[in-house]
Amino acid sequence: MPSVTYTIGLDYGSLSCRGILVSTTDGTILAENEFVYPHAVIDHQLPDGTPLQPQWALQDPDDFRQALYHIIPNLLKASQVQPSQVIAIGIDSTASTIIPVAEGLVPLCEQPSFRNRPHAWPKMWKHHAAAAEASEITAAAVAQGLPVVVKSGGAIGCESLMPKVLQIFHEDAETFQNTVSFFELCDWIVSLLAGREVRSTPLLTCKSMWTPQNGYPKGQPFDAITLKLAFHDGVHPVIAAPGESVGTLHPSMAQALGISENTVITAGQMDGYAALPGNGVADEGTLMMMIGTSTADMILGREWKDIPGVCAAMEDANLPNFTNYAAGQACVGDMFKWFIENCVPENYAQEARRRGLSIHAYLSELAAASKPGETGLVALDWWNGNKSCLNDSRLSGLIVGMTLATRPEHIYRALIEASAFGARKIIDNFREHGIPVHDIVACGGIALKNPFLMQIYADVFGMEIRTTTCTQTAALGAAIFAAAADGCRSGHHDVFSAIRAMGAKDTISYRPIIENVPKYNIIYQKYLELHDFFGKNHASFMHGLNGTN
Amino acid sequence: MPSVTYTIGLDYGSLSCRGILVSTTDGTILAENEFVYPHAVIDHQLPDGTPLQPQWALQDPDDFRQALYHIIPNLLKASQVQPSQVIAIGIDSTASTIIPVAEGLVPLCEQPSFRNRPHAWPKMWKHHAAAAEASEITAAAVAQGLPVVVKSGGAIGCESLMPKVLQIFHEDAETFQNTVSFFELCDWIVSLLAGREVRSTPLLTCKSMWTPQNGYPKGQPFDAITLKLAFHDGVHPVIAAPGESVGTLHPSMAQALGISENTVITAGQMDGYAALPGNGVADEGTLMMMIGTSTADMILGREWKDIPGVCAAMEDANLPNFTNYAAGQACVGDMFKWFIENCVPENYAQEARRRGLSIHAYLSELAAASKPGETGLVALDWWNGNKSCLNDSRLSGLIVGMTLATRPEHIYRALIEASAFGARKIIDNFREHGIPVHDIVACGGIALKNPFLMQIYADVFGMEIRTTTCTQTAALGAAIFAAAADGCRSGHHDVFSAIRAMGAKDTISYRPIIENVPKYNIIYQKYLELHDFFGKNHASFMHGLNGTN
Repeated sequence: MPSVTYTIGLDYGSLSCRGILVSTTDGTILAENEFVYPHAVIDHQLPDGTPLQPQWALQDPDDFRQALYHIIPNLLKASQVQPSQVIAIGIDSTASTIIPVAEGLVPLCEQPSFRNRPHAWPKMWKHHAAAAEASEITAAAVAQGLPVVVKSGGAIGCESLMPKVLQIFHEDAETFQNTVSFFELCDWIVSLLAGREVRSTPLLTCKSMWTPQNGYPKGQPFDAITLKLAFHDGVHPVIAAPGESVGTLHPSMAQALGISENTVITAGQMDGYAALPGNGVADEGTLMMMIGTSTADMILGREWKDIPGVCAAMEDANLPNFTNYAAGQACVGDMFKWFIENCVPENYAQEARRRGLSIHAYLSELAAASKPGETGLVALDWWNGNKSCLNDSRLSGLIVGMTLATRPEHIYRALIEASAFGARKIIDNFREHGIPVHDIVACGGIALKNPFLMQIYADVFGMEIRTTTCTQTAALGAAIFAAAADGCRSGHHDVFSAIRAMGAKDTISYRPIIENVPKYNIIYQKYLELHDFFGKNHASFMHGLNGTN
Repeated sequence: MPSVTYTIGLDYGSLSCRGILVSTTDGTILAENEFVYPHAVIDHQLPDGTPLQPQWALQDPDDFRQALYHIIPNLLKASQVQPSQVIAIGIDSTASTIIPVAEGLVPLCEQPSFRNRPHAWPKMWKHHAAAAEASEITAAAVAQGLPVVVKSGGAIGCESLMPKVLQIFHEDAETFQNTVSFFELCDWIVSLLAGREVRSTPLLTCKSMWTPQNGYPKGQPFDAITLKLAFHDGVHPVIAAPGESVGTLHPSMAQALGISENTVITAGQMDGYAALPGNGVADEGTLMMMIGTSTADMILGREWKDIPGVCAAMEDANLPNFTNYAAGQACVGDMFKWFIENCVPENYAQEARRRGLSIHAYLSELAAASKPGETGLVALDWWNGNKSCLNDSRLSGLIVGMTLATRPEHIYRALIEASAFGARKIIDNFREHGIPVHDIVACGGIALKNPFLMQIYADVFGMEIRTTTCTQTAALGAAIFAAAADGCRSGHHDVFSAIRAMGAKDTISYRPIIENVPKYNIIYQKYLELHDFFGKNHASFMHGLNGTN
């Protein structure tokens, strides 16, 4: 065993893959690398010009493969680490991004006869064209009384695997027939690396309705689908959790990537989930918020509880012997981006340019001049519906309190406050249902780039927030799972040991400004009044805003 | 008697006075002239630098006087009408714009020793610094059970005369003592022209709590104030209604203005009220809407009815033997202006310039692409509070329904629709309380300049709207009152005859687009839900939006 060992974590996002090479001793990142997918999101037409329907979102599987060949050698080169010192690789990815594959793990869309068939291509997580199938699957699961419905936030969403596969079954029989197996993106990468079919348990339980006790659901419409999921030529795939070894790198991959055949591969994880260990969370009591275009909230609980309004509550879906509760806000950075693109007047844009500031920085500076309550505005942050705690995509945004004295920076501040109130509602909901929240760690682009917003969050929560300065907490989580998968060489004999040693440590702390807390408590009550009126007691109001009811 | 006679109408607005010279035969406007007040609104400091408090708004009385010397000779010159053919002059003005005067109708602020005293200057209608006095007066009137409170919309507003005079009594005893009399602007101009003190009955009843039966209210705090209102050196002033003669032009004024000493002067009227006859309304059933920065609604009723939510309901306040009901929306054009100044992105401004369009025209073009309901937005038009039917200045604006697909033109359209819904609520309120609305005539800057808005109004009302093309309907109303005041020479022996002959006739008609009417009926119900929730059942929500309760 070399004295110092390293692992690689690869984070497959929507537009690029980021990789890091880290020390298993303390999680120090020695090298980072990014591969931007050449084909990005394929949502208007296939590369050959075949048109796509609305709501479709595909990707090119070769982009995912090329990321390996690009990133891993670059990490080795940049870090100057010996290939033999890289003991393990972990993967996380968006989900469900599903890939129909033929024999030998070859994506079906790479066969010439399927090149022009949209259904043969990987469907990205945000492919939303399987909504009818999601309803069909939910209805069937409800009819069978499957617990997975409650654990998935009350419905099987169209972003998960089953509805996407059912859509192919409905719409393109030939593609379905010729598919040997449907893979989640991270399972496919892990399988490529290990040279064998691997399925990760969190993906199976969270996205494929599988349980360790009962496997996949039975009956219609499941039987047709699961034929293409569980078995491959009659051979059981490896089923493992992140942090468990699924074997070592296949020799051909080892050669192609320039690392050792002894490199251990661990099972993949969903990107939001991987950030939890990446942020150093190894026990209950700490809420992790990943704040970006949207916000993903993760918290661990020692036992499963039925908490209304969470997006997913699955045992063992992240760390062993913990239930992982996932909640979220559907629109955070996207809402501010909407505001910047649609509501900022010309003279503000000019003044920001003159001063060399981004519009966000300029608006934040102006908005900082108001104290809590002084804008007189309250908003509901539902520009993209509400994920938690109402789980209603047909809700929409609201701003109240405008007068002739209202300025753009006031609205900007109100939108930030609204996102903070939405987050507080999620925290309160956890607490009300027996999940303690003693501590908050935030990560993600907005948490790192927007101290003005973070201070408002701290004031609204009345709690300190630690913001991780690490920009790659999901990849770091994957690297941590990798270290745990080779405990002999990393010295971490379980994932908790790896998290404590390697989880992100450098944080910026935001402590509440004491006089703002009671003021925001009052305005939060206003938010809750709106929340309950429009989200619960009169949800039909927003549902009917297009004049249909 | 010359075969053709003419009258002059002068409309004293906030920033300028407009005058017209019209034929008494058919109301044809032969000449128009405008005098912009050199001192505009004095709201930061007096001309000598004496600072003013917030909420103050003063004007220079010489600006009002100079308007006479400028406009009347110019009208004669431009029209080539013989001075002897001008038989009468009528005046309308903003109200209450009050002028403290010394002996000989000389404004107190023109005396050197009072030049630097803010309270010696005319207080404009929008001087809002007498709110405490308005409350004191309302309380006293309620305690006495005076019907004027109900007839004034439930409270004596701080824009009316009494609170402004009481403020002077409270804050500047010397100015108060040295004031011989306080005048409404139009009464002062009429008095200057006639060379005697004149008070107009609509101003007395609507702004000074006077009734023909009982005069001014008695007791405290009224007695101190009314000493300075009713008498002048022990001589009763002339009290008359618009359309009645108060005498002929004083010889010195006749000489200064270059018109005949035989010119009859009629009593003044409030500007919004004068527009009613100017628009040709002489009977019940027709609602007049003057749509500008705000909207003033006027309608006649054959008897007095207690209608909740109207701003004023006064017998004989406009045309004899009719109750004049006044309602209004506090923020119409001002709300669109707010939107243009605060919410239109740079690329929209650039594209409008490139195409040589105003922002309003460009947004209207884009907004016209949506059908009713397609924006998914509903707004409450309360940026400046709600005048009718809620009479609550502490209410504020609301927009609901935003998504990431919402564009500026959608919000612009929603604001126009909200102002239409607010107007429809006023119409419905009249109807529900027994005031028929068979017909609508609109005037004012927005009615004339914004066909896109007018079409939406027609669709929302489900009624045809006639828009008067005359831009000076208030001045025309003043000229009509003038014609009625000299029936012998005009041939109009009452004001109704003058209205029918001289009222504005050229109109543009907006008829509802049939398929839009039922769609807007549905969205109007949404508006009413918001209206009642935030305006009636939970008004405290908006009252407390600054975090105070």
